[in-house]
Amino acid sequence: MVSGRLLMSMALLILCGCQGTHSGNVLVFPGEFSHWLNMRVILEELVERNHSVTVLVCSASPSVNYTKPEGFSFKVYNVPFERHDLESLQEDFLNFWIYEAQNASMLQVGLKIREVLGSMTALHLNMCDAMFHNKELMDTLRQWEFDAVLSDPMMPCSDLMADALNVPFIISLRFTFGMTMERHCGQIPAPPSFVPAPPLTYTDQMSFFERVHNFVTYMIHSSFFSIHCLQTIDKYYSGIKGRPTTLCEILGKADIWLIRTYWDFEYPRPFLPNFKFVGGLHCKPAKLLSKAMEDFVQSSGDDGIVVFSLGSMIKNLTKERGNTIATALGQIPQKVLWRYSGEKPETLAPNTRVYEWIPQNDLLGHPKTKAFVTHGGTNGLYESIYHGVPMVGIPLFADQPDNIIHMKNKGAAVMVDFNKMTSKDLVDGLNSVINDPSYKASMMRLSRIHHDQPMKPLDTAVFWIEFVMRNKGAKHLRVEAHNLSW
Amino acid sequence: MVSGRLLMSMALLILCGCQGTHSGNVLVFPGEFSHWLNMRVILEELVERNHSVTVLVCSASPSVNYTKPEGFSFKVYNVPFERHDLESLQEDFLNFWIYEAQNASMLQVGLKIREVLGSMTALHLNMCDAMFHNKELMDTLRQWEFDAVLSDPMMPCSDLMADALNVPFIISLRFTFGMTMERHCGQIPAPPSFVPAPPLTYTDQMSFFERVHNFVTYMIHSSFFSIHCLQTIDKYYSGIKGRPTTLCEILGKADIWLIRTYWDFEYPRPFLPNFKFVGGLHCKPAKLLSKAMEDFVQSSGDDGIVVFSLGSMIKNLTKERGNTIATALGQIPQKVLWRYSGEKPETLAPNTRVYEWIPQNDLLGHPKTKAFVTHGGTNGLYESIYHGVPMVGIPLFADQPDNIIHMKNKGAAVMVDFNKMTSKDLVDGLNSVINDPSYKASMMRLSRIHHDQPMKPLDTAVFWIEFVMRNKGAKHLRVEAHNLSW
Repeated sequence: MVSGRLLMSMALLILCGCQGTHSGNVLVFPGEFSHWLNMRVILEELVERNHSVTVLVCSASPSVNYTKPEGFSFKVYNVPFERHDLESLQEDFLNFWIYEAQNASMLQVGLKIREVLGSMTALHLNMCDAMFHNKELMDTLRQWEFDAVLSDPMMPCSDLMADALNVPFIISLRFTFGMTMERHCGQIPAPPSFVPAPPLTYTDQMSFFERVHNFVTYMIHSSFFSIHCLQTIDKYYSGIKGRPTTLCEILGKADIWLIRTYWDFEYPRPFLPNFKFVGGLHCKPAKLLSKAMEDFVQSSGDDGIVVFSLGSMIKNLTKERGNTIATALGQIPQKVLWRYSGEKPETLAPNTRVYEWIPQNDLLGHPKTKAFVTHGGTNGLYESIYHGVPMVGIPLFADQPDNIIHMKNKGAAVMVDFNKMTSKDLVDGLNSVINDPSYKASMMRLSRIHHDQPMKPLDTAVFWIEFVMRNKGAKHLRVEAHNLSW
Repeated sequence: MVSGRLLMSMALLILCGCQGTHSGNVLVFPGEFSHWLNMRVILEELVERNHSVTVLVCSASPSVNYTKPEGFSFKVYNVPFERHDLESLQEDFLNFWIYEAQNASMLQVGLKIREVLGSMTALHLNMCDAMFHNKELMDTLRQWEFDAVLSDPMMPCSDLMADALNVPFIISLRFTFGMTMERHCGQIPAPPSFVPAPPLTYTDQMSFFERVHNFVTYMIHSSFFSIHCLQTIDKYYSGIKGRPTTLCEILGKADIWLIRTYWDFEYPRPFLPNFKFVGGLHCKPAKLLSKAMEDFVQSSGDDGIVVFSLGSMIKNLTKERGNTIATALGQIPQKVLWRYSGEKPETLAPNTRVYEWIPQNDLLGHPKTKAFVTHGGTNGLYESIYHGVPMVGIPLFADQPDNIIHMKNKGAAVMVDFNKMTSKDLVDGLNSVINDPSYKASMMRLSRIHHDQPMKPLDTAVFWIEFVMRNKGAKHLRVEAHNLSW
């Protein structure tokens, strides 16, 4: 009887906790690739909590499969280019960055970045046109009376759309280079004395000259950002608004910035009340593996396994790189599960199995897993922190070098250079993180920090999205710095 | 069956949530007066969660009744002065501040502040001596192996004791003037362009000249703080440590700063990962009143009641001020419950009852309550926000003017001047907050913000105290700015 009463009061407590939940209507601008994988976890949770979710997606999206039925719905708008155009632009840049940039001059790299940025901006403004000049779409979106917009700023004009629909909005962001968007549009302070500017490889402990370098880096990024905005985005935004405005005026209205990291990963730094750190929101306890995979994992005995993935964007390697990696993997006593969809390397050893796709989170959570070889995407990095698996990082582009440097500085990873590494480098890296217990200990320290939060990251993210819907914004968290004149 | 399973899984969920709870040993340096009332709510919750709590209190404490049995225990150390010495020092200053400062010159006020600060510092260093030169006490404290120190920096040398015992520590703080301690020892940024320096009466929207004034105010406070520390505290701390050190070096080691406000009250501003805002942690739903009090409250009919308290430190008013207040209260249709232990004013009207003590939180949570007349202490202010009762503020000293100005700027209070107010001023103030619905609406907006947090303030406070005990600190939240050289 007593335990029955106890259970009943627990149930009541839980029910009371749900009070005030309000079924809302969310419009989502998804990112692409891993950004989309991260965001869809939030969307699934919103649907689970009875909110109505509409994903606004362009017809050429490389990652969002809007033909597959989901718990949320899609609204597709047509753009005057194909999925292939986006993909080839990106592949072209990736190949340059990974294979050619190392041997190119600063000028060549600068010109390439300018060229890609130009093409990307042109495509983005095309996407914006396809939304704002589509009367049917705009009318429909207005009629649907959304309570909030959730957007990845990788998607252009989402802030402008929230403004046009007069709906509060929430941003999901990892970071921008030089933290330009966070500093200029979000008003977050970043003292150059102890907050290193990504993509610099410094920690929060810098020498005098590193601090000067850091300061100059912030300045350079700020200048490029301002010039880029002035020349293109501000002009476009002003045209749509019908009065002079800027990207930062519109984006700065964001009610909440969901940052996809936490203090397990970040160096402690000042932030603002509307910045919420939700890194690892997609992580879950491991599920059971398929029988075949579990058998292979168990066959590793006490040596355990290594999980290897360079992410979903790298589909193929050069023959030479593929063989260098395969040779290295053949020299360790562990069994290796390698996610790779390119041509099978000739030097592939019997301890290594290649898979088109692996259940990465479930493998990282397996007790036999000793190390994770990764390009260092934020999703995989957080799965590694969540499950406490030390890493060998082979960063390629975007946030990856910054991610791996953080982990290296925190003693939880070894970093190797994708282009320059020999088989021995990779073997040495793997032996270090597997056999030197300090890597595991450091990763377990980060894992404990990650798990010891007042609230789970996904719950925090959803709380603030629901807060914005319940209260039509979160203006009480937005600093007055947004309204300061020069 | 299904509902049985549901209840069982809920119970399991709750049990899982409790995993990792660790019974710790906390040493507490309590503040005095309202600070103590606030802190003891945390201590009761810690005891409730099976932690062992020891309050280290000096024999002359004016507020901490260490002879009364509590769920936590007391360790008393003797000081070479009496409770009366502390009380009379404070009463002397209060009387000067409330009744004389208005007509005194800047020089007189400055000299008085210097005199009081001097006497207070001398008493404080006496208290520190009484701890650090008491071998038996120090040995006992070392033997008890505390997991954390929780302190109100109103109590001197608590940080130095945590350092001596080599125990991580947590601070509970409302603010310091000019935010000197938070800025200098906590490294919190305070941009003078939109973060007003208490006790200035500005909001986060300042004109150019107000910003200049604000900037100068920060500078002046910083200078006084630095000089005061250099002359006395740093010297004392260096003596105890046996090497040159400063207050800010020792206090800056604090793992967590529990700030006794939240964004319902604060203007949004930058902060740091180890600053946690827990304003209103002492607030609770109202309990039933005594029969006699409930009858009196109900006799007010539709007009409702007004709750009046100038706090526990003001025991007596001048006859003239008492009569001015009593006359005003007699002119409103509401019934008034006035907490006042001084001589009964001659002009007391039949609608007003005077009490030595009132159940303030229960009265503020009563549906008949229309307004709260208050000196603006932080505890009462948060009870008002919690229950959504608009305020007439009569601030006297310390944080009270700053508190009431915040509430006034947010549209939830009228402020009147204690010395200059006529009966009409008080009546006008009361009629405004009771009859102009904008005050109630503003207070309800703040109340909604207060209640709509991811976690209750008391749970947040206790979470971080427990975190510090579980993890022997929270260094991953402490910015590197602490270690920067000039």
